[in-house]
Order: sequence, then structure tokens, then C-alpha cells
Amino acid sequence: MRTLTVETLEDLALGAAVLGTGGGGNPYIGKLMAQQAIKDYGPVTLYSLDELNDDDLIVPTAMMGAPTVMVEKMPNGDDIINAFQSIGKYLGRPIRATMSIEAGGLNSVVPIYVAARLQIPLVDCDGMGRAFPEIQMVTHTIHGISATPFAMSDERGNTVLMETINNRWTETFARSVTVDMGAMAMIACYAATVKQLKEVAVIGTMSKAEDIGKTIRRARLEEENPVETIRKAVGGFLIFHGKIGDVQRRTEAGFAKGDAFMEGVDAYAGQKLQLSFQNEHLAVRIDGEFKVTVPDLITVLDIDTGEPITTEGLRYGMRVAIISFPCTPKWRTPGGMALVGPRYFGYDVDYVPVEERYG
Amino acid sequence: MRTLTVETLEDLALGAAVLGTGGGGNPYIGKLMAQQAIKDYGPVTLYSLDELNDDDLIVPTAMMGAPTVMVEKMPNGDDIINAFQSIGKYLGRPIRATMSIEAGGLNSVVPIYVAARLQIPLVDCDGMGRAFPEIQMVTHTIHGISATPFAMSDERGNTVLMETINNRWTETFARSVTVDMGAMAMIACYAATVKQLKEVAVIGTMSKAEDIGKTIRRARLEEENPVETIRKAVGGFLIFHGKIGDVQRRTEAGFAKGDAFMEGVDAYAGQKLQLSFQNEHLAVRIDGEFKVTVPDLITVLDIDTGEPITTEGLRYGMRVAIISFPCTPKWRTPGGMALVGPRYFGYDVDYVPVEERYG
Repeated sequence: MRTLTVETLEDLALGAAVLGTGGGGNPYIGKLMAQQAIKDYGPVTLYSLDELNDDDLIVPTAMMGAPTVMVEKMPNGDDIINAFQSIGKYLGRPIRATMSIEAGGLNSVVPIYVAARLQIPLVDCDGMGRAFPEIQMVTHTIHGISATPFAMSDERGNTVLMETINNRWTETFARSVTVDMGAMAMIACYAATVKQLKEVAVIGTMSKAEDIGKTIRRARLEEENPVETIRKAVGGFLIFHGKIGDVQRRTEAGFAKGDAFMEGVDAYAGQKLQLSFQNEHLAVRIDGEFKVTVPDLITVLDIDTGEPITTEGLRYGMRVAIISFPCTPKWRTPGGMALVGPRYFGYDVDYVPVEERYG
Repeated sequence: MRTLTVETLEDLALGAAVLGTGGGGNPYIGKLMAQQAIKDYGPVTLYSLDELNDDDLIVPTAMMGAPTVMVEKMPNGDDIINAFQSIGKYLGRPIRATMSIEAGGLNSVVPIYVAARLQIPLVDCDGMGRAFPEIQMVTHTIHGISATPFAMSDERGNTVLMETINNRWTETFARSVTVDMGAMAMIACYAATVKQLKEVAVIGTMSKAEDIGKTIRRARLEEENPVETIRKAVGGFLIFHGKIGDVQRRTEAGFAKGDAFMEGVDAYAGQKLQLSFQNEHLAVRIDGEFKVTVPDLITVLDIDTGEPITTEGLRYGMRVAIISFPCTPKWRTPGGMALVGPRYFGYDVDYVPVEERYG
């Protein structure tokens, strides 16, 4: 176990933006809230699963909805505490700690706020090893752990608690209520014991995000090539250098879907790339052929600064580098593929691990 | 207290169709389910509030959504029991009895199913004295009783439980989840003690529905003028005889809204009537002037048989009689007007009690 410092949080948020693969929300406001909570309530201690008892109950906390809304409509903090405590009350069992369900983007830092405010441990793992757009897309689902009891609260004081027959139904109901709550809700779900999490969770993702962030920060100080530094830090591959020519967006069922079209530059001159997204980057086609898809991570970086670019940040004229790196092996199982493989998202193509094509 | 018989149920359902004022759903399938439950589990006893203890807890049960869906997608019965029992589990208190929240239409008989299956008392009261389209439109709301904990269940086994800051928010969330559940959900809500209900509820509405139904049934046997018989049975006024010329319908936010336009016949020849509805009949304009509005009850009857016609049953060419009768005095208070007065439904007109214009 170790204490998270203000500097840790900066690194963690920066690394989480890389793991966010264009989605998961900008961690900025979440980071501010977590830093303030640490000042107000005390430090947060990060535990590994091995440092907890096997029957300790862990409940992840997160934000659901459109992270862009957070800038206009700050969560008040009580909302996420309400959601978290509803689960404990409902189960009639003490909750030992919280964790991130989604290590990419904003939801890497939301649980830090909860851990600080309630002075409970934060566990060094998550349920994705990246960001994904839907509730059921977590490694817990592969192993049959229910998302419910699922609690969601808004900043007004409303709480909705559900018990569903599967995690896809949780997504359906929770998506609708999130829209009603103002496109954003704070949630607590996927209660599991430490023993279960040892089998189910993606281990060490908080530390991984922090390490990535630390590497980027140091590279910036030393004026290294930032894209290359990030690529190495994540153990990934360079896919493309390009200039964004067009971005087509559509909102479907509460998701930001669309495609960005790029012309290759540098060694990629003459090639045409299509980047498809649904909150997160999902697939890259070059000259019409699929090159990388979910569940491998696709990250778009500013070619000069290495700053990760979110799907909503894609703009005409930007010069970007695209890197990709392998997802957790848990997603490469049949159960994982059914949940988050390219076919689930409507791409009629088999998944090919990024290292097979680019390694 | 008295036992409800199969004949009682027939009368009650018929009377409830009159109190449904065009909405509340056809009680037919609910009646079949209640009759079957009485055969399988035993009789239902109807209690007055005075026959229960002041601190007994009563939880109403109902169907929410589009009653037309029930024909295609039968509730399995476990759904409403799940919703009802979720409330007891959540509150950690035994529930003594159930009641109707809406005496008009289908929801007059849904609680009879619950009472039969769980062998608990049914209370002779409701929260409207008629049917209304939205969750917050009950006399409980006027008196500050919360709709929450509010439980909703579907036939698959999903349950959603909510705690909201007011009853309008319950309506918002529950409406969305109802759509997700397939346009229909079984609900339990508005938990209250007998002491509270003595002040809050519309008393004796189950018996009233039964009396109306009994009168109609006898009139049919004796070949009386059925419209006149019903008008007398409800203590109401004849508003119009007409022929439906046009029906305009639109679906807005999950509601069946629209207008029926009629040409007067008999003594009303030469007059033009506009009947506006949102699930229930809301307002009657004759030659452009508002004549009757919510919260008074507007019932459309087949001019020959006296059969109540639901808003979805309005068809070109039908010859109908329109009667209207006074709502419970609770709706005529400032609190009642704010919830269900003509202005809430978008009509820029003051409420005039039907007996002042037609009495």
C-alpha cells in the first residue's frame, strides 16, 4: 500500500487520458475534486488486492453519461457518496473499499474522491484496463458478476437503485435515467469480494496509469519526442501520422458516434485513414482495410506535444499521431470478444491483435 | 369488511371503465388475472380504513405504461409481486395491505390480484377517484406523501427502485424505465399508514366503482336507456350527443395525446365539439368555448349501448354521448389544481366545476 499524493494524481490523470482511448472523459474536473477532497478529508491509500482480506467487499464508483456536461454542471460530491452508500445500505453489509471500474479518463479519478471523502482504501485495479462506452463492458461481466445492485444518484438528491437479470439490462435502464438526470449520473455498482476480484479484475491499472503519466511528464521536461515516449511507455505501435480532413459526428442513443478521415503525412503520405468512434476510438481503417480494432487500445496524440486527443476534440486540420497497444488478455477470450469485439460494435471483421499486424 | 366475489369483480371493472374517463386501460385482462388468482389462492377481503390499525402500512400496486400492450405481452404476475415485496424489503417493515392508486380502468383490479395472491387485505380507497396519466397526480402528492420508495418490475425479473426528491422526478425516471421495459411496468409506491390515508386518500372508490357497474348491469337487463342510467349512477350531467368526424392523434413523451372532433346530433345539432385527451379525456370545447375540463370526469359512451369508449377507441363515424361529473373535492383545492388543473395540461383557462355550468 502507498499514499497517493497530489503529484501522483497529476500523473494518474495524464496516464488515464492515454488509456481513455479518446473517451472516458477529461479527468480535469474529477482531478480537482479528488485533490480538494484529499485536502479536506485526508490522504488516500492505494492497496493491492493482496493487502486486503479475501471476503472484503469492494464497490466501484464512477460517472456515467456525457463527461462534457461536467464542465457546465458540477457534481456536488454528495451524489457519488449517495450512490456508494445506497449499495451498502441495500446489501446490509459494510463496504471495505472502492475502485475504478474504468481506468481510462475521468473514471480513474472519481473513486479517489470517494476514497478520500470516506477515508477508505482505493484498490489498484479496474474492470476494463481502458475506457469503454457501455456498462456491461467490464471484465466482471465475463466472469458472471452482476452489475446490480446498481445505484445512480444526481446532484439534486435523486437516487435510482436497480436489480436486473443481466448487465445489458442495467445498461438499458441506466442509460435512460442518466439522460433524465441531465446527461450525467454518479454510479456505484459491480460489488465483488477481493477473492472474486483477484480472478476478475484488471490488476494494477491505477499504477499503470500513473507510470504512463510519469513517463510523459518526464519526457516533456527533457524535451524528448513525446509521441515516441508515450508509445514506448504503453508498449505500443505507431499506426499513422496524419492530418484530419473531415469529422462526421452523429448522436445515437445517447452516444457520440462518428468517423474522422485523415490524409497521411511523413512516411504515411498518400494513405487515407478512417477512424471510427463511439465515445471511444473503436477502429482504424487504412485505404479501406481494417488495421486495428477494439478491444485493443487506439490513442490519438497531438503530433507535436503528445497530448491525448478525445473523440470530441478531433478537429479539421489537426496533425496527429495514432498509436495502438494491446488490451488485457481478458478481452481476448470468447467472453471478452462477445462483449467488446469489433462485431459487437457493428464491424463485420474478425479481431486481429495489434501486435500480430504491427509487432 | 366484505369478500369480493367473481360477480363483484365484473361490476367493479365495468364501473372502473366509467371512472377511467377514457384512460386507465381496459380492465379486461387485469380482471381475468384477479379472478384466476382468487381461484388459485383464495378470496379477497375489502376493508375500510376504519377496520385497520392507524399505523398499518399500505402500499398501492398498479400497472404503468400503455395498457394496450398488455394484450400482446401478458404480465406474468410475479412482476407485480416483485415490485410490492421490494418496497417491504427496502423499508424493512411489514406491509399490511394493498390498495388501488387509480380507481379508473385497469388499475382498479391490479391490486385485487396482489391481495388474492398474497392473501392480504384490499383497502376501499384510491389516490385519484378516477384515472390520470402521470405518477404525481394523486391526492397523496397534495398532502406531501412521497411516491418513493418506488419499485417497478418487468416480466423478465428486472426491478428498479428509486428515491426521488419529489414525485415529479419519480414520474420522469419511471416513464423512461417503463419505455425500456417494453412500454409496460408493474409498480408499487406511495407507501402510507392508515392514519395518513384517512386524511389523504379518496375514500370508498372500490365500492363506488362496483355500485356504478352494478347499476349499469341491472339497467342492461331491464333495457333502460343506458346513457341516462350511467349519468344518474355517477351523479353527472349530459354534455353532448354527437358523431365523431375526425380524430387527430400524436404520441408525445410516451403519452397518447390528441383531439376528437364531433358534430352535434339530436338536441345538439349544429354544434361542434372538440374533445382533447392525454391518455384520459381532459377537456371539452363546444363551438370553441371550454365547457368541461380536468379534474372533473369526462366519460364518452356509445350512445346506444352505454359502453364507455377509451381514448384509443375513438373512431370516425361513432355516435357517442358525453357525460361529465364532479371530481373529488380534494382536486378542487389549490394543491389539487396545481397538479391536475387545466393549466397543468396546457389549457389557458380557469377551472369551472361542471355543476356550476350544467347543474
